[in-house]
Amino acid sequence: MANLLIRGATVLTMEDQEGIYPEGEIAVAGDTIVAAGEQGCVPENFQADRVIDAWGMVALPGFVNCHTHAAMTLLRGYADDMPLMKWLTEKIWPLEEKLQREDFYWGTSLCCLEMIKSGTTTFADMYFEMDQVALAVEESGMRACLSRGMIGLGPGARIAVEDSVNFVREWNGRASGRIKTMFGPHAPYTCPPEYLEEVIGLARQYGVGLHIHVAETRDEIRQIKESYGTTPVRHLDNIGLFELPVLAAHCVHLDQEEIEIMAAKKVGVAHCPESNMKLASGIAPVNRMLAAGVKVGLGTDGAASNNNLDMLEEMRSASLLQKVANEDPVVLPSFESLKMATRAGAEVLGLPDVGLLKPGMKADLILVGFNRPHLCPRHDIFAHMVYAAHSADVDTVIINGKVVMEGRRILTMDEEEVMRKAQEHAFRLVGKI
Amino acid sequence: MANLLIRGATVLTMEDQEGIYPEGEIAVAGDTIVAAGEQGCVPENFQADRVIDAWGMVALPGFVNCHTHAAMTLLRGYADDMPLMKWLTEKIWPLEEKLQREDFYWGTSLCCLEMIKSGTTTFADMYFEMDQVALAVEESGMRACLSRGMIGLGPGARIAVEDSVNFVREWNGRASGRIKTMFGPHAPYTCPPEYLEEVIGLARQYGVGLHIHVAETRDEIRQIKESYGTTPVRHLDNIGLFELPVLAAHCVHLDQEEIEIMAAKKVGVAHCPESNMKLASGIAPVNRMLAAGVKVGLGTDGAASNNNLDMLEEMRSASLLQKVANEDPVVLPSFESLKMATRAGAEVLGLPDVGLLKPGMKADLILVGFNRPHLCPRHDIFAHMVYAAHSADVDTVIINGKVVMEGRRILTMDEEEVMRKAQEHAFRLVGKI
Repeated sequence: MANLLIRGATVLTMEDQEGIYPEGEIAVAGDTIVAAGEQGCVPENFQADRVIDAWGMVALPGFVNCHTHAAMTLLRGYADDMPLMKWLTEKIWPLEEKLQREDFYWGTSLCCLEMIKSGTTTFADMYFEMDQVALAVEESGMRACLSRGMIGLGPGARIAVEDSVNFVREWNGRASGRIKTMFGPHAPYTCPPEYLEEVIGLARQYGVGLHIHVAETRDEIRQIKESYGTTPVRHLDNIGLFELPVLAAHCVHLDQEEIEIMAAKKVGVAHCPESNMKLASGIAPVNRMLAAGVKVGLGTDGAASNNNLDMLEEMRSASLLQKVANEDPVVLPSFESLKMATRAGAEVLGLPDVGLLKPGMKADLILVGFNRPHLCPRHDIFAHMVYAAHSADVDTVIINGKVVMEGRRILTMDEEEVMRKAQEHAFRLVGKI
Repeated sequence: MANLLIRGATVLTMEDQEGIYPEGEIAVAGDTIVAAGEQGCVPENFQADRVIDAWGMVALPGFVNCHTHAAMTLLRGYADDMPLMKWLTEKIWPLEEKLQREDFYWGTSLCCLEMIKSGTTTFADMYFEMDQVALAVEESGMRACLSRGMIGLGPGARIAVEDSVNFVREWNGRASGRIKTMFGPHAPYTCPPEYLEEVIGLARQYGVGLHIHVAETRDEIRQIKESYGTTPVRHLDNIGLFELPVLAAHCVHLDQEEIEIMAAKKVGVAHCPESNMKLASGIAPVNRMLAAGVKVGLGTDGAASNNNLDMLEEMRSASLLQKVANEDPVVLPSFESLKMATRAGAEVLGLPDVGLLKPGMKADLILVGFNRPHLCPRHDIFAHMVYAAHSADVDTVIINGKVVMEGRRILTMDEEEVMRKAQEHAFRLVGKI
C-alpha cells in the first residue's frame, strides 16, 4: 500500500471544536494516519508515494453509518407512505421472502456505492446471506461491522444460529481487518429470552458484540410489557445482554431510568432520525441520552425506510429534529452531530482506531469540495458540513489508506454495472421483468 | 426566444399522480409550454430551434420557494445553535445594520445561483434595497415575487412605505414579466393595526398582494394576545388583511378555527419546516391545513436559519416531520410534498400560469438526472424525488422558456465571480477583511 500525503485541505481532526487547520496536511503510511493537522505536522523525512492536492477542500474522518440493512437498497421506493404493519406484511416481508443469494450481493454493492459517494467509510449491517454481503463489502473497499439477522421464533431460529456462528468464524477480521462481525438477534420481541441467552453465550465465546433493534415503536413497548412485565431496555438488562458490547438501534421510547441503565452499561446507540420520522416511530431522546453519557452514533436504517443512505442528511435531520422536539435551538449543535456521525459512531461500533484524524488511527477520511454556492461564504465549517453540505460535495474517499473514490469516480467498483445489475435484480423481485 | 423540444425524459406534469410519461416530450414556444406529456403529444408541425435529449432524466416543473430573505445568504453559518433572541439581537440584527446596497445585490445573486443549481425557478423574497434584489433576479433569469420588508414602528416606518410604493411602481411586471411585486408588512407584532390598514390600502390601490410573517413563534402568540386580546390570524382577519391576496409565512401555531378562517379567506401559506426546526419555533399543522383546504406552499426561509436554499431537502423534511409529528406514516405522501413544492407554491404566490407542465403554462421546468446510485432502482419516481434525490441531481433548468442551467453549468451568471464577491462582501460585514 502506498504512502499518501494530502496537502492544502482544511483539516478537521474531530478531536474538538478547535481542531480546525486551514491549509493543513495529512500523512498516511499504509493503512494508518501518521500525521494530521497544521501545515508542517508531517515529519520532514516522510516519503510520499503520492501527493493529493486538496486546496479549497475540507478533510475530515469518513462517516460511520451505525445501522442499516444494506441489501434492502433494492427495495428503495418500492413502498412508502403506508401504515407500518401494512407496509411490512403486504410489501416488505413478501418481497424479502423472494430475495435470492445474488440479490444480497448486488443490493449490498449498490448500498456501498451510494455510501462511498456520500462520504461513508464504515457501516453496520444486519441482514441475511451475510457471506454475499461480506463479499460485496470486501470488493467495495469499505469497513463494516456485519451481523446475520436472527429471528428466534419458528424453524428459522436454529438456522440463524448456525449461519451466524459460521459467518463469525469465517469472516471476523477478514478483508485486511476491514470486516468485523457481530451476532444480530433482531429484537426483544422476535427473540425469546432463552434464545437471547444462547446468543449472548455465543457472542462471549467468539469475542464479538451484538447488534439489536431496541425500543423502536410504541407497539414494541406495549408488547414487551405484556410479555415480560417490563420495558425492552430493562428486559434486555435483566437477561444480561448489556454485559456484552451492544449496538442498540433506534432506542426511541426510553424513560430516564432506562437511559441511565444504558449509560452505566455502556450500550452504544444507533440513532436513526430519518427512519424514525418516515415510519412515524417517534423522536428519540438523543439530547437526554447524550447528557446522561450514553454513546450515540447515527444510522440511516435501510433504504426502504429512509430512502437514501446519506449521512450528511442524517446529521442535519438529527440536529433539526432535536431542536424542534426540545423547543430549544441550542441542543445538538453542529459539532455534536458531526461527532455522532464520525468518532462517536466508531465508538458505538467498537472501533477504537476509527473516527478521528490523528496519528495511529486508521486512514478513513474524506475530502469535501467547498467551492460551492451553498457552502459560501465560509463563516463556519462545522455548521456548513451539518446544515448546508450535500453528499455530492464529497470529492475523495480514502478507506484503510486506499483511495476508493477520487473526483467522485469510484475506483473499486464498476458504477454502471452495479446500478444495472441492481436494477435488474430489483425488477425481477417486484415482477417487472 | 427559441423554440425548444425536450425528448426522452420521463415527464411529470404534476397534474395528478397518473401524470407520468416515460420517454415523453415537451415543446416550448417562446416562454410558454405548447405540449407536455407522452411521446407524440407535440404537434407534428412544431418547429424546434433546439432539441434537448433528456433520456434517463426526469422532467418536472421547477420548484417554487415561497419564503426567503435572499441576501441573508451572506450570513449563512455566521451564527447557529443559539437561543432565538440572542441570535437576533447579538448576531443577525447588528450585522443587518451594516449591510450596504451592494451587499444586497451580491447576497441575492449568490442566493439565485444556489437556487437555480438546486432546481428552484421561482421564489418569494422579503428584504431591503429591493431594486438591488430585483436587478440580481433580472440578471439571473429567475422568476420572483419581491417585497420590501416593512417595520411599522419607529422612524423607518414612513421610509418603508415610500420605498415599497416606489418599488412596486417601478418593478411590478418587469423582466419580461418574471418579476412581480408585493407589499411586505413584516409581521403583526412589528406592524400596528393602523399601519397594516395603510398598507392594505396601498396594496389594493396598486393591485398587488401582501407577504407577511404569521404565527411563527409561541412568543408572537403571547405578544399579540397581550396587545390585542386575540391570536395573530384572528387579529389580521379583523383588520381586513385577508380580503387581499396574502402570502403568510410560517403559520406554526394555529388553532382549528384559525385554520378554517385561512381556508375561507384563501390565505396562502409558506410552510418552512427546516427553519421552524432549526430555530425551534414548532411544527406547523400542515396536515390539518391541507385537510381544511388551505393553500400551502414550501419555503426555505433565509440561509441564516436553514442553512441552505434546497427545496428537495425542504420537501423531504416537510413529509418526514408531518409523519413523526402526527405519529402516522401515511400523512403528507411524496406526491403531496412535490405538489407543495411546485404547483401549490405557484398558487400561493398568485401565479396561475406556473407550476404545471401543460399547454399554456410558462416554461419553468427542470431536468433531473436519475442515473445515480441513490436513485436506483427506479421503483417510484415521486418517492425518489422527495425521499432520495439531492439538489446536485438537477441537471438542466429552464425558466420562462430560457435555458439558465445546462449540465449544471449556469448560463446567466458568472458562478466564480458571484461566489468570490459574495465571500468578500460577507467577510467585510463580519470584519474579517
